[in-house]
Amino acid sequence: MIQIFSIQDSDFTKKFNVLLSRANTDMHTIIPQVLTTLEDIKTRGIDSLLELVRQYDRWNPKCFGCLKIDNNQAEEAYRKLTPKLRDSLQIAYDRIYAFHDLTKPKGFLHTDSLNNILGQHVLPVQRAGIYVPGGKAFYPSSLLMNAIPAKVAGVKEIIMTTPTPDNHINELLLAAMHLCGITEGYKIGGVGAIGMLAYGIGSNLWHKKNQEIANEDSDVLFKKVDVITGPGNIFVATAKKLVFGEVNIDMIAGPSEIGIIADTSAKSNLLAIDMLAQAEHDEMASSILITDNIDLAREVAIKIDEKLATLSRKTIAEKSINNRGAIIIVENLIQASMLMNEIAPEHLEIVTKEPLNLLPQIKAAGAIFLGHYTPEAIGDYLAGPNHTLPTGGSAKFFSPLGVENFCTKSSIIAFSQEGLQNLSEACATLADTESLEAHKLSVLAR
Amino acid sequence: MIQIFSIQDSDFTKKFNVLLSRANTDMHTIIPQVLTTLEDIKTRGIDSLLELVRQYDRWNPKCFGCLKIDNNQAEEAYRKLTPKLRDSLQIAYDRIYAFHDLTKPKGFLHTDSLNNILGQHVLPVQRAGIYVPGGKAFYPSSLLMNAIPAKVAGVKEIIMTTPTPDNHINELLLAAMHLCGITEGYKIGGVGAIGMLAYGIGSNLWHKKNQEIANEDSDVLFKKVDVITGPGNIFVATAKKLVFGEVNIDMIAGPSEIGIIADTSAKSNLLAIDMLAQAEHDEMASSILITDNIDLAREVAIKIDEKLATLSRKTIAEKSINNRGAIIIVENLIQASMLMNEIAPEHLEIVTKEPLNLLPQIKAAGAIFLGHYTPEAIGDYLAGPNHTLPTGGSAKFFSPLGVENFCTKSSIIAFSQEGLQNLSEACATLADTESLEAHKLSVLAR
Repeated sequence: MIQIFSIQDSDFTKKFNVLLSRANTDMHTIIPQVLTTLEDIKTRGIDSLLELVRQYDRWNPKCFGCLKIDNNQAEEAYRKLTPKLRDSLQIAYDRIYAFHDLTKPKGFLHTDSLNNILGQHVLPVQRAGIYVPGGKAFYPSSLLMNAIPAKVAGVKEIIMTTPTPDNHINELLLAAMHLCGITEGYKIGGVGAIGMLAYGIGSNLWHKKNQEIANEDSDVLFKKVDVITGPGNIFVATAKKLVFGEVNIDMIAGPSEIGIIADTSAKSNLLAIDMLAQAEHDEMASSILITDNIDLAREVAIKIDEKLATLSRKTIAEKSINNRGAIIIVENLIQASMLMNEIAPEHLEIVTKEPLNLLPQIKAAGAIFLGHYTPEAIGDYLAGPNHTLPTGGSAKFFSPLGVENFCTKSSIIAFSQEGLQNLSEACATLADTESLEAHKLSVLAR
Repeated sequence: MIQIFSIQDSDFTKKFNVLLSRANTDMHTIIPQVLTTLEDIKTRGIDSLLELVRQYDRWNPKCFGCLKIDNNQAEEAYRKLTPKLRDSLQIAYDRIYAFHDLTKPKGFLHTDSLNNILGQHVLPVQRAGIYVPGGKAFYPSSLLMNAIPAKVAGVKEIIMTTPTPDNHINELLLAAMHLCGITEGYKIGGVGAIGMLAYGIGSNLWHKKNQEIANEDSDVLFKKVDVITGPGNIFVATAKKLVFGEVNIDMIAGPSEIGIIADTSAKSNLLAIDMLAQAEHDEMASSILITDNIDLAREVAIKIDEKLATLSRKTIAEKSINNRGAIIIVENLIQASMLMNEIAPEHLEIVTKEPLNLLPQIKAAGAIFLGHYTPEAIGDYLAGPNHTLPTGGSAKFFSPLGVENFCTKSSIIAFSQEGLQNLSEACATLADTESLEAHKLSVLAR
């Protein structure tokens, strides 16, 4: 059964701190191993990649081209979808697109009082790589949530990679790939995929082995991307962290979480289902309800137990609820918000009479679901905002995946003669303090 | 002398690729060492920090409080500035503040056709840590460029750390700290500083050693920050990369660079000075001029030689110009832009008759300086936009440091009853494809 405790308990801080400690997946221990694989991809290129596929996916591609996903197969998979599923995916696609379009960053030019023009130029990155995890961890919705912001940003080259154990590829993934208009997909997963995306792949080694002569044009089999996004296991996450700087990455994501703030207006069975919807993802997922109503707390605990028994993913959900779930009783909703800000949950539901009134109290959460008609699951699929959200408390410093992850900004500075004259002395004074003589000269000589 | 070559040379690609390869500072080899230090800080806390100060800065602090910078000393340093320098710093402060204020991200709420409210909530992070490099690498302007965006974002707790060899602290840094209103500074640098900012420091070990009893309140000597920004050497950069995920970081920065596109309207002596202003930073700095005018190219090369002889930082600048500088002759300015996009320079000057006309051709640059009255140095100090810019070609995927680095976004979703009814079937269909039963239930049960 889910644990219930109160902020007034003498051992509250201890219990709450245990909840906060959460999934502390330690990457440090696997860094040396991931580093070795990345270095191997850097130096041996395609040979290294092909070996990784043989080792982890148990099939035997002979060349880089053999890793490419067949676009006709993707189109075929899309055509084979039931009309109902195709329509549902299209609704999701359109709503996600429409929301992300609202968040597209815009450049600006501003003229200051000295007639200097200052501003910002916003551009899409050239190439984006989307990592799609394999097997059970693949959700078609994830591909939409990664590809659509890139498309809204205006990225021309969107590349997808995914592991294909035994050279088998998920039909839904193929269909979603076609829906998203992605025409460049590769059958490679894990650290190999991240290395390929981050460093690019040269043909020279492979050519040498095949006794052909590499000329300069054929030297690049795969050009490195600018940004890598998408979820993955701890090896993928560690590889992304290690290539950060060679490329940009989205974030380091962990198990899924929900925090719910509820008052007496909430229905216990709906809260129970919402908590189980989080718990069914993963044994490490965490569901925490904070309420000022002790009766509601008890009812929710009972309802969770009842519903749990009926779920096909009962074993997973039960472990998550027992080990990483909690219901906390507080005196009022302000207290609930304060605790929730410490948790900084990936998903936050506010199920109260006046949910908008509580919004100003919230200082950190990935996505906030307000009111009685906003189950978190609607955000997973088609509400519009992204479902790739900061986990493990990182909502304190990370933001949802968005169009901005696929854009760069450049500052624009165009000084007027008047502006330069007016400011050159102050600028020269500052250059002096840093003993940068040519800096000073460059301002005074004009 | 600086090398000159043309896009028409038979070995152009080879020469250009050498330029592109740039400063390839390999972090991988030092990762194990940095990891060991970070782990030590995690496990031994303050004891580890104090040892690092003894080892690297050669003084002997006895407690965490001993690392704190005295705010009175900072105020005193500010008061001792010459009025001219104080005024210049204030001009810089005000202009940087005004520009960053224009870029402050704004939240929004949007109502869709089904009466669902969708939006974004923007908030400052709670705690930001600014790393300030020591000794020769410290520029007062850097502190302003890091602290001001945090202040504009609304960050309440801004913490500064800097190494203080022999317990000596730079007076200008103290003055800039006071100007920026930073009241929490620590005398610790390198990997130690990054570890302290990323993990926080508990007192328990230290307390035990001193045979006091740690109670829960005194357990935290320093609370971890949410974001770490600021330049540093390769050990600092590697540590920042390794703690990414525990905190957010700004970017991985390398040596400074300038790219200049110039036509016949440009003055050769000004171009030469601007290239030298970049070269005087660092032997690894890079200055590349691309022009369609061969006479201008030759004149600039001669002027660089002449002015080089007069500079106090001649030795540094000369190495930079000879090893990492170049003048490239192209047929036209479109070609110049295409090459420049491959370089993606940190700083780009466009010194042509109609610089704004060329702007749409530019796909990647940290900051773009337009026209004859905009020397890059003005951007280093007081133009307004940030001088912390992506280097080493990373302008293809990183953006200038800005207010957004100190903010988080949360998605807002508030569905109407109508909205949920309308979309629940599509949502349930998608949940079915992912075999997430409670997800489906949570939508259908409402």
